[in-house]
Amino acid sequence: MQRKSFAGMPCPIARSLEHVGEWWSILILRDAFRGVRRFEDFRESLGVAPNMLTRRLNSLVEAGLLRRELYCEHPPRHEYRLTERGKDFRPVLLALLAWGNRHFPAEGEGVMLVDTESGARIDPILVDRHTGRALERGSYELAPSLAASAATRPALADEPRRRKCASSDAASPARSPAQRDQPKDR
Amino acid sequence: MQRKSFAGMPCPIARSLEHVGEWWSILILRDAFRGVRRFEDFRESLGVAPNMLTRRLNSLVEAGLLRRELYCEHPPRHEYRLTERGKDFRPVLLALLAWGNRHFPAEGEGVMLVDTESGARIDPILVDRHTGRALERGSYELAPSLAASAATRPALADEPRRRKCASSDAASPARSPAQRDQPKDR
Repeated sequence: MQRKSFAGMPCPIARSLEHVGEWWSILILRDAFRGVRRFEDFRESLGVAPNMLTRRLNSLVEAGLLRRELYCEHPPRHEYRLTERGKDFRPVLLALLAWGNRHFPAEGEGVMLVDTESGARIDPILVDRHTGRALERGSYELAPSLAASAATRPALADEPRRRKCASSDAASPARSPAQRDQPKDR
Repeated sequence: MQRKSFAGMPCPIARSLEHVGEWWSILILRDAFRGVRRFEDFRESLGVAPNMLTRRLNSLVEAGLLRRELYCEHPPRHEYRLTERGKDFRPVLLALLAWGNRHFPAEGEGVMLVDTESGARIDPILVDRHTGRALERGSYELAPSLAASAATRPALADEPRRRKCASSDAASPARSPAQRDQPKDR
């Protein structure tokens, strides 16, 4: 699929997706976390076409999430291991896991996170490392880290004021009067 | 792109990706969190082709992350709003944002999370809601929630024992002796 590159965008989510924003990449990382390291094992686990798997593995190596390591010289064979950057992706996978469990429960069987010591079910939430405060709506906002453009400033902040028909159209600077008169409902 | 459906897989990450595992979907959700609601505003923000945007918005509505709401009757116009399921996706976006900020810092400008009250920079980590314990390697594991298959059990757990050339090939039950003799390095 042809797509626009987001690497230069100031939004860090866009930059993340530049490297992992592809279905297979995230599943490859998931498998890497559970110990899968070899091409054939990834292929088998994912049921993915070899050329697609090669492409995704190479791109994860290029992005510095996996490294390729020779584990056998004769014949030469490599495996793919998580780098520190790859290991640091764990919270994203865990957040996806928790969300999937909550909203798309498995039919009949599934997996859940449990505490290693107590065996109690874990319900992961995001908190600030320093204060321990939960990141809930209203408790945080996005700020420019250096000189972020106005367009990126409100990303992920709370939803804005409710907009109404006429005023909102008039308030939209990017739409010309000619465009405004055309039906744009879809 | 033709792809295998993961909806029936027991892994909750795979189930999540069934609904949001597409580049544009995650960026649409990001924009929805920062208050974007209208087709033209999404299109403008993302620079995405209208037919792709229509497809992704419809699929997010079908998956129950967005709802379509009439905001103007004459002419009929709709906007897209986050449902509770959509709002609950926030931790995934915040985890992506933090990871992107750490590993792919913006050149010159960017955004960061700050505490609304203190203005201090936030470093989001995952903890268990009940115990407050950080989800770090070794502190948690995956367990079957009902009757998960063996294949899904170790997902996301710590990396397994190191495998060596000969023993690992011999230990791989899925590879026949004939396959084992073929070069499989890529």
